Amino acid sequence: MSYNSFGHVLRVTTFGESHGPAIGCVIDGCPPGLEISPEEIRTELARRASGKSRHTSQRREKDDVQIVSGVFEGKTTGTSLAMLIENTDAKSKDYENIKRQFRPGHADYTYWKKYGFRDYRGGGRSSARETTMRVAAGAVARKWLRINHSVEIQGWLAQLGPIRTDAMMDWESIEHNPFFCPDPKCVPELETYMDKLRKSGDSVGARVNVIARNVPAGLGAPVYGKLDADLASAMMSINAAKGVEIGAGFESVSQMGTEHRDEMTADGFLGNNAGGILGGISSGQDVVVSTAFKPTSSLRIPCRGLDMDGKEVEIVTKGRHDPCVGIRATPIVEAMMALVLMDHAMLHRAQIG
Amino acid sequence: MSYNSFGHVLRVTTFGESHGPAIGCVIDGCPPGLEISPEEIRTELARRASGKSRHTSQRREKDDVQIVSGVFEGKTTGTSLAMLIENTDAKSKDYENIKRQFRPGHADYTYWKKYGFRDYRGGGRSSARETTMRVAAGAVARKWLRINHSVEIQGWLAQLGPIRTDAMMDWESIEHNPFFCPDPKCVPELETYMDKLRKSGDSVGARVNVIARNVPAGLGAPVYGKLDADLASAMMSINAAKGVEIGAGFESVSQMGTEHRDEMTADGFLGNNAGGILGGISSGQDVVVSTAFKPTSSLRIPCRGLDMDGKEVEIVTKGRHDPCVGIRATPIVEAMMALVLMDHAMLHRAQIG
Amino acid sequence: MSYNSFGHVLRVTTFGESHGPAIGCVIDGCPPGLEISPEEIRTELARRASGKSRHTSQRREKDDVQIVSGVFEGKTTGTSLAMLIENTDAKSKDYENIKRQFRPGHADYTYWKKYGFRDYRGGGRSSARETTMRVAAGAVARKWLRINHSVEIQGWLAQLGPIRTDAMMDWESIEHNPFFCPDPKCVPELETYMDKLRKSGDSVGARVNVIARNVPAGLGAPVYGKLDADLASAMMSINAAKGVEIGAGFESVSQMGTEHRDEMTADGFLGNNAGGILGGISSGQDVVVSTAFKPTSSLRIPCRGLDMDGKEVEIVTKGRHDPCVGIRATPIVEAMMALVLMDHAMLHRAQIG
Amino acid sequence: MSYNSFGHVLRVTTFGESHGPAIGCVIDGCPPGLEISPEEIRTELARRASGKSRHTSQRREKDDVQIVSGVFEGKTTGTSLAMLIENTDAKSKDYENIKRQFRPGHADYTYWKKYGFRDYRGGGRSSARETTMRVAAGAVARKWLRINHSVEIQGWLAQLGPIRTDAMMDWESIEHNPFFCPDPKCVPELETYMDKLRKSGDSVGARVNVIARNVPAGLGAPVYGKLDADLASAMMSINAAKGVEIGAGFESVSQMGTEHRDEMTADGFLGNNAGGILGGISSGQDVVVSTAFKPTSSLRIPCRGLDMDGKEVEIVTKGRHDPCVGIRATPIVEAMMALVLMDHAMLHRAQIG
Repeated sequence: MSYNSFGHVLRVTTFGESHGPAIGCVIDGCPPGLEISPEEIRTELARRASGKSRHTSQRREKDDVQIVSGVFEGKTTGTSLAMLIENTDAKSKDYENIKRQFRPGHADYTYWKKYGFRDYRGGGRSSARETTMRVAAGAVARKWLRINHSVEIQGWLAQLGPIRTDAMMDWESIEHNPFFCPDPKCVPELETYMDKLRKSGDSVGARVNVIARNVPAGLGAPVYGKLDADLASAMMSINAAKGVEIGAGFESVSQMGTEHRDEMTADGFLGNNAGGILGGISSGQDVVVSTAFKPTSSLRIPCRGLDMDGKEVEIVTKGRHDPCVGIRATPIVEAMMALVLMDHAMLHRAQIG
Repeated sequence: MSYNSFGHVLRVTTFGESHGPAIGCVIDGCPPGLEISPEEIRTELARRASGKSRHTSQRREKDDVQIVSGVFEGKTTGTSLAMLIENTDAKSKDYENIKRQFRPGHADYTYWKKYGFRDYRGGGRSSARETTMRVAAGAVARKWLRINHSVEIQGWLAQLGPIRTDAMMDWESIEHNPFFCPDPKCVPELETYMDKLRKSGDSVGARVNVIARNVPAGLGAPVYGKLDADLASAMMSINAAKGVEIGAGFESVSQMGTEHRDEMTADGFLGNNAGGILGGISSGQDVVVSTAFKPTSSLRIPCRGLDMDGKEVEIVTKGRHDPCVGIRATPIVEAMMALVLMDHAMLHRAQIG
Repeated sequence: MSYNSFGHVLRVTTFGESHGPAIGCVIDGCPPGLEISPEEIRTELARRASGKSRHTSQRREKDDVQIVSGVFEGKTTGTSLAMLIENTDAKSKDYENIKRQFRPGHADYTYWKKYGFRDYRGGGRSSARETTMRVAAGAVARKWLRINHSVEIQGWLAQLGPIRTDAMMDWESIEHNPFFCPDPKCVPELETYMDKLRKSGDSVGARVNVIARNVPAGLGAPVYGKLDADLASAMMSINAAKGVEIGAGFESVSQMGTEHRDEMTADGFLGNNAGGILGGISSGQDVVVSTAFKPTSSLRIPCRGLDMDGKEVEIVTKGRHDPCVGIRATPIVEAMMALVLMDHAMLHRAQIG
Repeated sequence: MSYNSFGHVLRVTTFGESHGPAIGCVIDGCPPGLEISPEEIRTELARRASGKSRHTSQRREKDDVQIVSGVFEGKTTGTSLAMLIENTDAKSKDYENIKRQFRPGHADYTYWKKYGFRDYRGGGRSSARETTMRVAAGAVARKWLRINHSVEIQGWLAQLGPIRTDAMMDWESIEHNPFFCPDPKCVPELETYMDKLRKSGDSVGARVNVIARNVPAGLGAPVYGKLDADLASAMMSINAAKGVEIGAGFESVSQMGTEHRDEMTADGFLGNNAGGILGGISSGQDVVVSTAFKPTSSLRIPCRGLDMDGKEVEIVTKGRHDPCVGIRATPIVEAMMALVLMDHAMLHRAQIG
């Protein structure tokens, strides 16, 4: 069972709470001989980091990742690769007032119903801080995929609230704005929207897309180890995710078969409605996944809620929160794509050689 | 690893090809003492059966399920519950002409790229025939959930091609039309549309929704064993699925936090954008999942494709195919919901008692 | 979880009871392209079959194995390989008298304590009949190992009750006596002993050894996926097993380090106390495992026992039982060795390539 | 797959090398609400600690365990319970001379064959230092079992080289000598033997037994999730283990059925040859396991070995090594027993409720 682990032969286990001493992960099954340094991991972490711009939470963690085991003389050894990041900017007092309250839209209520307990400080284990370790683990997978299969993974913001942000795809520009927006012309509009949103105290949802290029054909499995099923699970496991699409996704509902089926010619496929996956197995086309993120529910705008005694209370969430959690989701979505693909690349060679 | 199995403590393994001697499944971990008869399973199977109406494939399998092990004197024993259905109406000669061809939109090409082989008869293992065993296993889960937790699961067709089919929800009517359509007024429109579609030789996509009522709060796990992640994986593993949503799903993208968060009062939640799951754990609200199914690619309308030598060929698929695979997806989606919920109910008591 | 499955990337799931309609197994993860026929499987099954000689149970099953899925045109496809054997010689009436009794030394009592139920006919799921499917699955693994790694696996009877049976190792003779005894001179003594034992109505234990040659160095994993740990689990999971040793086993207890450590020279190791495994990983030496089997507890000699009401009763077991279950254990032990080695060979290439 | 994890619904993952910055573990699935403090864990760790007496290695680690996550206000939360211990007394220079040599009887050669790499300092991941985290995790399991099922687990040294050490069982005395020897009269003999052994530079094997009392009947599963199979795997996964027995173990080989079967009366079983497990399921009797540990191969007495170039070299192992690793194995064996039993107690309630 996998309460806090995922993957088949490449297993990632994470631990740590938002306001505990540290967060960390263990990567089990990583092939030996991969050169990896804390600096490379930090580069990826910086992309998702808090405090990157005024549009994200002002919690400022250094994310000073340490490799605790599994790397010797700069290379992976094949044994448990463990990483650790100390929490240095946790402000638990922000949470004193909601200690006995359930914030609507949060895991507060469900954790309490499940465990009879909860670490109320910053969401405890349900905090988006956990995603830091996904990005750290993903950095290893990404490098492995690049070296072994030339796979390149790129995510982007496709929609933020009412604004469609990828009408124009300028791949270069994605990394040069705080939104991972591929359309430079859209950036000023996003800035204005977000400034207004922040002032309003409200939050908004987002759609984040990710593409993996050069994925070898043949990854996945026919029935329950389907590549798309694993991608769906991986993306849906990210905090605030509410929907996942492969290729044409929900557009398939209104498509005709003659329109959807990607015809093949000697020059390749004539479309990619499949999103690179047919029958659960990669086709060699780009693997394309889209994920919906809900707006954060941590708002300073009051709302109705309950406390632990079942009494109605007015809930106001202080602390430092992202008005659009989707903005920082791009590196997380990329990391999950990388981890799933690496796992399946390894599984493939287990079975096929 | 789980190429052909899914679940954590309730594990379902399926086997069998579309045109092999039989299909079957093994349910591992089913609690003892559950009364179950082949008749009950057949009742569920009849709901998904081929040949139910002129709108689905005319393959007519009796689906005469046998319980091979794990039931003694009418009750489950707690050991491997195996079921078997012989294939009686397989017509392999329909596939002779595509023996060396890759049908676009099908698993033909990817299986061949992965395994270097394929059982070309009816898609082999990638055939939707495999979903019969999901429904058989789901019947067991459904009964267990009903008896132990009063959980009721109901799916319905929410959209077929351009037609939104659940503007009005009349729960009673769902089982009384060949589409699982909840709006009786919509049925004639569907009949007309499907008759026209069938004649045209084309196919269309569909959206199928499913709701589970009385799900106890507390099922799921915080990070990677999330109930929604497992539901996403379960639904995406169904043939032709291209997207999965929990609750508000992709609508969350354009929602504001004040709109999305389901406020709580002493009388309960004021909405269910969450789809009954917060932080990966059930809240006690209805669990609501929506799945997108692509239009089948098996069409008698010719298209461009390749053969095993990489040569371009015109592909025409004969045989008996559903013009909208989504029509029969309702019982499958219900079965997957049941299996995931039962697995998580069992996992919950493993950890919490 | 794996109540009825074992293996990591090569997963075997078995089902069926001693007196149900059939027994079967599903092999998940088997590489594609392996030629395998029902005849080859039957050859292995014949080695463990009931009624092979007067020294084993007189139940006479044809073990007419059918391949239900996963093989197409004589080769494995890479998908679920399912096999089925009908039970034709089950005589359930033999068990009527113990229907409400717990036979000492049997699983009757513990199944009842666990499940509140039991299929009392021939032990139900706890019957040694289940091992038939281990041998069937093992036949596939054995062939794969032979073709891919030239691995050869041979088991033998090393001790039967008081008689040490492998003082002399004549490999050729193992298959030419009903005991899998490697010392032809010992066979008459075994015949005499067993004839006397059968008449006495008592039973006796046995030790069965198995060796695997040409196992590539590097199979296994450092800590919990150790090759020896998996072998220990595999052997201990066989009915009646009470002990497992790797290499020198319990003799290591009284050995000195200078005596136990297998020194290495340019010509190879100077001994094999390690049994071919160091630090959980194969060394390239022969992998050697020894398993202890208890005497069967199904005796016609009466003993004290309880019934389902907790009342003391005299237990007499009728039916057809092996006076030494160890005699038929050799092919089972070989099968478990094959399945563990193949699983680890596949895991190795997952991680290392 | 589980290279560095074990357990089904209670999963333990360990990480860290002998001479890396730290070692640690993650316990996944631990039920919420269990009071646990670092002090309780340290108490268990002290029992296995290096430098406990002159008879064990003189490496002196403080084993100052930190709980990094999963405990809030003194109680487990139900989420990942992570623990960490810094390595403070690692002396890597001791290993410079064997950097390119393979010590016979060690994992040096097999790690290198598997991974093409090895962390030569103190055995890296193959070091017995890893067992510290087993004891830490076991302390949690032990407490949970005690509180929930009154299970008591006690291990002891049963044999050290030629000396049988448990002819007389004085339970009280086990904790009052440096050997975990249950026979106080035997202790002076052990002292003398070990002093002589240490001076000789040689090492010796040991047998360690463990008993669990008050184990509820019904834990385990029929075929591959057998309690004894999991115990065998758990014990065999400990460094230097070469054999595992349940109950009568290898003595069963020469027992008669009438002698081995533990008859039952209204007052209970008349013996415990079964070691508390029948058909893979606990019977309510004491669960009894015996494990053989080989003599350590790290000796200052020279031997023949190879280096990385395949050249023969004389190997002399410096550093601080236990002349009998079995002496410190008692707390490790107890920990593995506790972890397996807790996992199965949880699995049992998953299936049975």
